[in-house]
Amino acid sequence: MQAGESYAIGLDFGSNAVRCVVIDCATGHEAGVGVWGYRCGDKGVFGSASNPHVARQDPKDFVDGLCAVVPMALLDAVEKNPAFSIDSVIGVGIDTTGSTPMPVDENLKPLAFREEFRDNLNAKAWMWKDHSSVAEAELITRKAKEIRPEYLSICGGTYSSEWYFSKVFHCLNVDPQVFDAAYIWLEMADYLPALLCGIDCVDDMKFSVCAAGHKAMFNESWGGFPDSSFWASIDPRLGEYRNRLPSRAYSSDHQAGKLSEEWSRKLGLPAGIPVAVGAFDAHLGAVGAGVGAGRMVKIIGTSVCDVLVGADVDQIPGVCGIVDGSIVPGMKGIEAGQSAVGDIFNWFIEKVCGGDASMFARLEEQAAKLKPGQSGLMALDWQNGNRSILADARLTGLIVGLTLQTTQAEIYRCLLEATAFGARRILDRLEEYGVDVREVVACGGIAEKNPLFMQIYADVLGRTMMISASSQTCALGAAIMAMVAAGIYPDVPAAQKRVCSFKEEVYRPVSSAKVVYDQLYKVYCELHDSFGFGNHASVMKELLKIRQ
Amino acid sequence: MQAGESYAIGLDFGSNAVRCVVIDCATGHEAGVGVWGYRCGDKGVFGSASNPHVARQDPKDFVDGLCAVVPMALLDAVEKNPAFSIDSVIGVGIDTTGSTPMPVDENLKPLAFREEFRDNLNAKAWMWKDHSSVAEAELITRKAKEIRPEYLSICGGTYSSEWYFSKVFHCLNVDPQVFDAAYIWLEMADYLPALLCGIDCVDDMKFSVCAAGHKAMFNESWGGFPDSSFWASIDPRLGEYRNRLPSRAYSSDHQAGKLSEEWSRKLGLPAGIPVAVGAFDAHLGAVGAGVGAGRMVKIIGTSVCDVLVGADVDQIPGVCGIVDGSIVPGMKGIEAGQSAVGDIFNWFIEKVCGGDASMFARLEEQAAKLKPGQSGLMALDWQNGNRSILADARLTGLIVGLTLQTTQAEIYRCLLEATAFGARRILDRLEEYGVDVREVVACGGIAEKNPLFMQIYADVLGRTMMISASSQTCALGAAIMAMVAAGIYPDVPAAQKRVCSFKEEVYRPVSSAKVVYDQLYKVYCELHDSFGFGNHASVMKELLKIRQ
Repeated sequence: MQAGESYAIGLDFGSNAVRCVVIDCATGHEAGVGVWGYRCGDKGVFGSASNPHVARQDPKDFVDGLCAVVPMALLDAVEKNPAFSIDSVIGVGIDTTGSTPMPVDENLKPLAFREEFRDNLNAKAWMWKDHSSVAEAELITRKAKEIRPEYLSICGGTYSSEWYFSKVFHCLNVDPQVFDAAYIWLEMADYLPALLCGIDCVDDMKFSVCAAGHKAMFNESWGGFPDSSFWASIDPRLGEYRNRLPSRAYSSDHQAGKLSEEWSRKLGLPAGIPVAVGAFDAHLGAVGAGVGAGRMVKIIGTSVCDVLVGADVDQIPGVCGIVDGSIVPGMKGIEAGQSAVGDIFNWFIEKVCGGDASMFARLEEQAAKLKPGQSGLMALDWQNGNRSILADARLTGLIVGLTLQTTQAEIYRCLLEATAFGARRILDRLEEYGVDVREVVACGGIAEKNPLFMQIYADVLGRTMMISASSQTCALGAAIMAMVAAGIYPDVPAAQKRVCSFKEEVYRPVSSAKVVYDQLYKVYCELHDSFGFGNHASVMKELLKIRQ
Repeated sequence: MQAGESYAIGLDFGSNAVRCVVIDCATGHEAGVGVWGYRCGDKGVFGSASNPHVARQDPKDFVDGLCAVVPMALLDAVEKNPAFSIDSVIGVGIDTTGSTPMPVDENLKPLAFREEFRDNLNAKAWMWKDHSSVAEAELITRKAKEIRPEYLSICGGTYSSEWYFSKVFHCLNVDPQVFDAAYIWLEMADYLPALLCGIDCVDDMKFSVCAAGHKAMFNESWGGFPDSSFWASIDPRLGEYRNRLPSRAYSSDHQAGKLSEEWSRKLGLPAGIPVAVGAFDAHLGAVGAGVGAGRMVKIIGTSVCDVLVGADVDQIPGVCGIVDGSIVPGMKGIEAGQSAVGDIFNWFIEKVCGGDASMFARLEEQAAKLKPGQSGLMALDWQNGNRSILADARLTGLIVGLTLQTTQAEIYRCLLEATAFGARRILDRLEEYGVDVREVVACGGIAEKNPLFMQIYADVLGRTMMISASSQTCALGAAIMAMVAAGIYPDVPAAQKRVCSFKEEVYRPVSSAKVVYDQLYKVYCELHDSFGFGNHASVMKELLKIRQ
């Protein structure tokens, strides 16, 4: 295969915008790109004045975005290289945020498009970060613990309020009219490939194993989604609903179908090219960043998503999810994460220091001059709870070691270090359960712009840290899936080998720093365990109780 | 006695300036005032580039200050009331910082005035906040624990690096030339009354029981200062030194002597009027603020000094000092405190928020709108260690309950509350040992300017909080001692009754707030005990160890 011979389309539906890349299948070169910001709500997001936990999206943005962004990327490719031919596009891959389910009718039409539901937030897509369904998540977790503990084993022991069934169940409780009008709730990752292929009934769809496995307790060992009698024990209507769900789910090397005539016209792409089964952005981002045996990908943004693949592991307590084939087909896909990382730095600089972007640079410079342990500070990075290992959203942040001499830069560095210690705690747990991690690929703006962050992580984790060369790893990963689904490559690793690359800067552990961080990590673990589940496990909860 | 009939002079030697007040003995009215800032070093303080713990003062500032400030106050009195006559001044009282000892020769002349020692910081006065003598303090504490545990019972269990013998001993170790040249080391509180009375040998001096008792383990029950063989067991030269110390000490209702002819001329005061025995600023400040049975005085500044009197108590673990007659003659004087209060607020606003005085007002306003417990935050107020109860300078500050929504105002209020919880922990300990505290008088700028602070303290302590009417309580207390020493009043309470008054604003506990603070206080105590001496007692020390 030669450069310029064939191209794949990668579509990345993020929280506020959709991105499209045109990738050269032989080289991974980004031949064209398009970005389209969502127009509905506030940058695509509808909140509720009465409930701060609500975050919804209008599927109109997804459809309008598709129509806008693909031609934009194709045009860009033609402008950059007049020899580029649309006929050389061999397939489409799609990633989306998730769990972001929305109610659709029997023909897979979003309820949001009906006049009667036009202004009803419950009929829209329920965004991954929508937290209205806490009570339902707790009930599902409790019930599963009682009668189906195996269900929780693949999702770290707790079913989250962010996930599929919590949201469907919450809608049933607060808006039965929408619940009743819906035939089924589709993840964006399932809806969009079906839409492009002109599929109009559930039976013809290929559901994403990534979405189903990580957010809806789908597992082949118990016959797919949790069984109907489990759901009926929570609510009879959930039991009925379960029977409408499919029994199989597919990895993204499968074709969801072929691009329909209608969408071929709308997008300007060849009709009949394969559209890959969808998957979540973090997972395809990891694929685009080169995730593989022994190589973890950290997607570092406001929060952090750790994505790994491992062959021989079934459950790891406190780790968000393990799903066969959800990332790289044929390997167990493992997802863990930290609820806040970039958000903690932003919070400190904006809300505590009252600073702006220029303060970042100043604190960075000052913090870089400090030695490990020099500040005498230690923090717990739980300002937004703890996602992995403790899986407890109600934990809060802590700082200790403060003196009258403590400076902004010292606190800033201590917060950086705390997130690194949190990351190490996850790695340690993975290692305990036999998952091998020899090196880490970081993606995201923080990794690219913040050498201090990267060096601290290398020193704390004791691993080589690399940075993905692409700044669009999610869309690149989607394009890789298009290539594999179209048969251009036999499997994901073969495609990654040709398409993925890394930046020149590589961060390696410095042994003198590592020695100090090993000591500090012991202190971190003492506090982590004590406030997480030990002697002081009640302190943060008690403060929240008093607060309420 | 009529208003305008007789006046007393109160002299207050602070850390950076000396103040003089002319007080009407019948009413407490401040007839005249003078303030003179020290000129040597940096606002009176000599630091050392090589040792951040060094803080020394030149006695030249004390002498120059005396000569400047008394005529200034007398002139002010004449200007305000032409009928004022210098002949109506009946005595002089003096308070100083402490422990602030300096080496003098056999004729009580400061070594600092000798040409050979002019630039030697060790020959100057060693300020209360000089921390160079940590090792010596530890050695003295260890030795006393071994062979004279009773010595520590009156000073909370630990002999401090800030105190008299630690400093004398440190000088012996680092500068034997100065140690050998000194006949004796005098506290400022002893040196200045002797100077005014023209006394030139130790035998004619009346040492302050306040200084000796609180900072030099003086107690009549073991014959005054710790015995010579105790000191000899530490160093033979200390044993010899001990033999030059006097065997008695006096409360400030005694006359140190009469004003000499020489100083009468220098100051423009009647010769032969009584000069009261000196005492420390915090203690005479408490007298000026109305300290008495059941009424505690809190002197609130960068740190806080709690001053109480109680009849029937010999020792209270973790409380800095208990000395018979050190505050109000005939009652046990009790001193406790918090190492940082105002300093914590200043640190947060200046060093963390990067703000200035205007930010104080803004945060104050925002914090006042929050309800108790609303922030979900809790802090330990140990940014400068813990002085009372734990008596451990190596403890550090902690904040827990941080979220991505946490604001500056929430942290500010939480720090205010933490210092109040720290204050309550001290009160609880005092109560356990039978010291009755029904109301609290606060002195200092924070008390006068910060109604939120006062209300939080009333709610947390569950006591009425008042504010001293005088903003010069230390100098007023010194003047009260002059009145009692001169026989104008039979005792301190009789003088206080006429001379002390309170501001109109009184802060009383609000029961709805107190209920919440009682819950929060339990959380504070859990953290206090755990990090102070319990499960996590090693965390802060370990961080300091790694730091070094």
